[in-house]
Amino acid sequence: MSTTTPDAGQAPGQPAPAGPAGLGVGMRLSLHPHTDDFVDVILGALEDVEAAGLTDGLVLETDEVSTYVGATRAPAEQRLAAYLTTLVTAASRRCSGGHVVAHVLLSRGCPGEVSCDLATTDLPRVDPVDLPPSGLPAIAQWSLYPLLDGDGGGGDHMAPIEEAIAAARRSGVATAPRHYATRLAGDLSQVVATAVDAWARVGATVPHVVTHLTLSLGSPSVTEETR
Amino acid sequence: MSTTTPDAGQAPGQPAPAGPAGLGVGMRLSLHPHTDDFVDVILGALEDVEAAGLTDGLVLETDEVSTYVGATRAPAEQRLAAYLTTLVTAASRRCSGGHVVAHVLLSRGCPGEVSCDLATTDLPRVDPVDLPPSGLPAIAQWSLYPLLDGDGGGGDHMAPIEEAIAAARRSGVATAPRHYATRLAGDLSQVVATAVDAWARVGATVPHVVTHLTLSLGSPSVTEETR
Repeated sequence: MSTTTPDAGQAPGQPAPAGPAGLGVGMRLSLHPHTDDFVDVILGALEDVEAAGLTDGLVLETDEVSTYVGATRAPAEQRLAAYLTTLVTAASRRCSGGHVVAHVLLSRGCPGEVSCDLATTDLPRVDPVDLPPSGLPAIAQWSLYPLLDGDGGGGDHMAPIEEAIAAARRSGVATAPRHYATRLAGDLSQVVATAVDAWARVGATVPHVVTHLTLSLGSPSVTEETR
Repeated sequence: MSTTTPDAGQAPGQPAPAGPAGLGVGMRLSLHPHTDDFVDVILGALEDVEAAGLTDGLVLETDEVSTYVGATRAPAEQRLAAYLTTLVTAASRRCSGGHVVAHVLLSRGCPGEVSCDLATTDLPRVDPVDLPPSGLPAIAQWSLYPLLDGDGGGGDHMAPIEEAIAAARRSGVATAPRHYATRLAGDLSQVVATAVDAWARVGATVPHVVTHLTLSLGSPSVTEETR
């Protein structure tokens, strides 16, 4: 549970421990191929990503609901974004361009399962991720949550968020607001990079930042008009 | 986009406008039947819920990725929880107990798509929801995000969150922590009620609260051992 109980292992206001693992940089993701063959598609896609060598520097744990992917080595955001994009691409190919949805939770700044209280000093500035085009059009809904303490130590968190959103709009990937989310559209790689880069950018000034991204490919309700 | 830019329509620190619509109480949900017949399952389940009269007091907008369900009349939480549980039950029945996942984002305290700044006064205290047992076992992953401003006005937000989580643990529904989430297990109705009640309870003292819930039914990776 994020933001629920104080983390016993972390003194309040401490600088973040060094490295992606110390910052708890990682994601949970679930993959939903809308086909009778969903088990083969999911297992095959996971094998494809492993065969492509993209699990290097990551730790993976799959349970009944989703897969946790934690980054153990820099560049953490690049590794996570490449893993996610390649996995979704592989799933889409394995179900012949049919309808595949991925739901992703990206988190940073809370190494345990619970609330923590890292200082706003020593937070890393991260380069934008670099992903080759996937060739697959994707639509997404995206929400970004800077998790502050309400104790006056939050600092100026609005500036980097507004900057991140403005960058997404300038790129043309953020296309419209939705209730509780922003609609993203573009090549799968662009959509993933937009969410990951914004999340990492806010993480340079706010310790604990979570973003949720629902990626949809091959939906029959997407027409040329809505795309 | 939640928590991104100041809401032009809302002066800072204002009491929440009256009623569920004024507080922006609603959800986005997406339904993922893992079957070739996913279109029929989804459309059929939506019809079932409408035929059961459960869209009363709600406004619905479906787009390419998810469905927005906003509450226009009290009891907002009860209406949302009944809609969600009945929809997922209908989808599960329509695909003969096959694998169905629903992803849900519940939000309160931010009527627009963007950040807002409601005061912590006049927030409603909400009765727990009352749902008949669905008869369907569900596993879920759940995250709860109180969205504070970091300006010192957040008040004591930890107490109601710890209380909500303790209640979920006492009920036996919250079974284990996961990275970035808590695992819930039980009858679908219990699982939904646990997340909805915790979210509403925190909303009595924190204006803007979002919770994400990934519900999984009929997964082939759930064995008697893991259940």
